[in-house]
Amino acid sequence: MDKNPSAALLVIGNEVLSGRTQDANIKFLATRLGEIGIPLREVRVIPDDRAVIVRTVNEVRAAFDHVFTTGGIGPTHDDITSECIAEAFGVPWEPHPEAWPKMEASYKPGEFNAARQRMATMPRGATLIENKVSNAPGFSIGNVHVMAGVPRIMQAMFEALAPTLAGGRPVVSRTVHGTGLLEGRIAAPLAAIQARHPGLDIGSYPFYRQSGNGVAIVAKGTEAAEAEAAIAEATAMIREFGIEPMQGEPPA
Amino acid sequence: MDKNPSAALLVIGNEVLSGRTQDANIKFLATRLGEIGIPLREVRVIPDDRAVIVRTVNEVRAAFDHVFTTGGIGPTHDDITSECIAEAFGVPWEPHPEAWPKMEASYKPGEFNAARQRMATMPRGATLIENKVSNAPGFSIGNVHVMAGVPRIMQAMFEALAPTLAGGRPVVSRTVHGTGLLEGRIAAPLAAIQARHPGLDIGSYPFYRQSGNGVAIVAKGTEAAEAEAAIAEATAMIREFGIEPMQGEPPA
Repeated sequence: MDKNPSAALLVIGNEVLSGRTQDANIKFLATRLGEIGIPLREVRVIPDDRAVIVRTVNEVRAAFDHVFTTGGIGPTHDDITSECIAEAFGVPWEPHPEAWPKMEASYKPGEFNAARQRMATMPRGATLIENKVSNAPGFSIGNVHVMAGVPRIMQAMFEALAPTLAGGRPVVSRTVHGTGLLEGRIAAPLAAIQARHPGLDIGSYPFYRQSGNGVAIVAKGTEAAEAEAAIAEATAMIREFGIEPMQGEPPA
Repeated sequence: MDKNPSAALLVIGNEVLSGRTQDANIKFLATRLGEIGIPLREVRVIPDDRAVIVRTVNEVRAAFDHVFTTGGIGPTHDDITSECIAEAFGVPWEPHPEAWPKMEASYKPGEFNAARQRMATMPRGATLIENKVSNAPGFSIGNVHVMAGVPRIMQAMFEALAPTLAGGRPVVSRTVHGTGLLEGRIAAPLAAIQARHPGLDIGSYPFYRQSGNGVAIVAKGTEAAEAEAAIAEATAMIREFGIEPMQGEPPA
């Protein structure tokens, strides 16, 4: 997986840090980025604070191939992502030549007020990300992709953006689980399977169900055949503990 | 809120970054930390990667008053949080004088194997965090509090730990919402309310319900009376738009 481009996600907004809102964007983006071969390597959730946003954007855009941001691009005073991205890149924050006339035309005369004009104001050089759900677009500048925080708008923006990104090999995942399995018993043989497949990430995840507790073993990587080989070994290992292995994730 | 101690959370685990698992710990800890006056200021989700964990722990423990970690303290090869914390603090990772005999006693003879012994191995100087759900404790060292990733175990550990933390003033929150309200219309008067209450964080959050779309306005801070005053102003402002304000969060 190391040859794939890498991604970081910045979730920008006080509402996740205060516990008001359950984040719903990390799982979607983690899954989709794996599918297009740009695996997510780090997420940071940060507040609507100018200094923190500017510093964090500059840290992560230097460290990862792609940075995705969600949140803070609406019209209100706490929506400061766009101007912070301009500051991070050291470029003017100005009316976007394409977004401004498009958004202006979408409002009745007099309704394209100062707050809405902010949503058409972007870092110089930004490329728009289409928004099929509402009328304010996202944008990309350099390797930073700026999207809405509302999940269905973010998802529409991501799907508009994804075909333009040069992805790598899709990350695939294979799973086997066993009810009654204990992590403390399988640790040594599982470590041996991981050691035989250094190109994979092999993880073990306890589950707790009314139907019984157990452990799921997940092999992840860009080589489907290798993931399948590792899961075949894990399947045999589970059987050696006298437990019937079940392919796939445990039932919900 | 600035006089309160600050918290950062590290969610350690490939399973959140791959999209396999929906994080369920951020919202719980964000809420509880606000309640005990140690507001959460940043979250990072990082992989089971030694260099990344060590570097990140050292960055955040220098920048925040408290650091909480979830994940990576089980018995398998991908559970490396504990030894990474020792490395970050530059102390030996060794059998914990209290945890080791306790855990050993909890297993049948011969079952306290090498994998399980790892869960009783901790950075020198660590103080245990009680685990009432299963048998491996968490621990604190310096300002870093190391907890399990499984939500009900993490929650039990946090509740055991919380009374020992010197918290600040609880963060309180007051909310009003209006169906039919548009962020692009209220932005200017809302910014004026924020400007009159610099001690509060005032946020506006669109909602989308079958019963109608609208905006919720949230005022957050350590002064309940000030949050209530700001929400009273927001209530009057909503009414000026000809919309009936409703106290509290919009219905689910």
